[in-house]
Amino acid sequence: MASDLPKISDGHPREVCPVFHAAVELIGRRWNGAILATLARGPELRFCEIEASIPDISPRLLTERLRELAAEGVVERRTAGEHPVRVSYALTTKGEALLPVLAAIGAWAAAWRT
Amino acid sequence: MASDLPKISDGHPREVCPVFHAAVELIGRRWNGAILATLARGPELRFCEIEASIPDISPRLLTERLRELAAEGVVERRTAGEHPVRVSYALTTKGEALLPVLAAIGAWAAAWRT
Repeated sequence: MASDLPKISDGHPREVCPVFHAAVELIGRRWNGAILATLARGPELRFCEIEASIPDISPRLLTERLRELAAEGVVERRTAGEHPVRVSYALTTKGEALLPVLAAIGAWAAAWRT
Repeated sequence: MASDLPKISDGHPREVCPVFHAAVELIGRRWNGAILATLARGPELRFCEIEASIPDISPRLLTERLRELAAEGVVERRTAGEHPVRVSYALTTKGEALLPVLAAIGAWAAAWRT
């Protein structure tokens, strides 16, 4: 099976690649998958629209996660206008590159749901 | 973009599907991605072999995660022999079905590593 997964060990066959490790935990950190899946419906969404898509997330946690995803370069915070400023969020190119991952997880979840 | 991700919202276009949500967090929970990636090198591994592949994981946490992954049906604990019993761990069919997800994450990590 290892031959199907060349990028996971990435030259260190006996240790999990730290880049892979960081990526899987970024995607899986509580709420991040849901936030990315919501933003994938793009092109851009306001805070309240993201919040409405994710039952049970608190505004404080959503703020924190959006900042974290922006710091990782997968989400972009956009501002437009002045009075009032209109703020919205969108996936970056790096974030859009995660969509095949989210689609694969969705397909697995649909196939194996119990 | 939403049309590329039919399984994520799964009939609830304005809410993230709870099955997707559970799946992404199972995969992303601390160490689970690394454990699954390690087991993907199969066919089966002993506890000490998994531990050696994942720097910094404690035996207590590895035990806990293996139990959790077994309870979710993605990892199987196998015993053989009697004196002493030989214990090993392997992916189930449901766990092997996660390999395309891990491969997609690995490809993303390799493409966007900084």
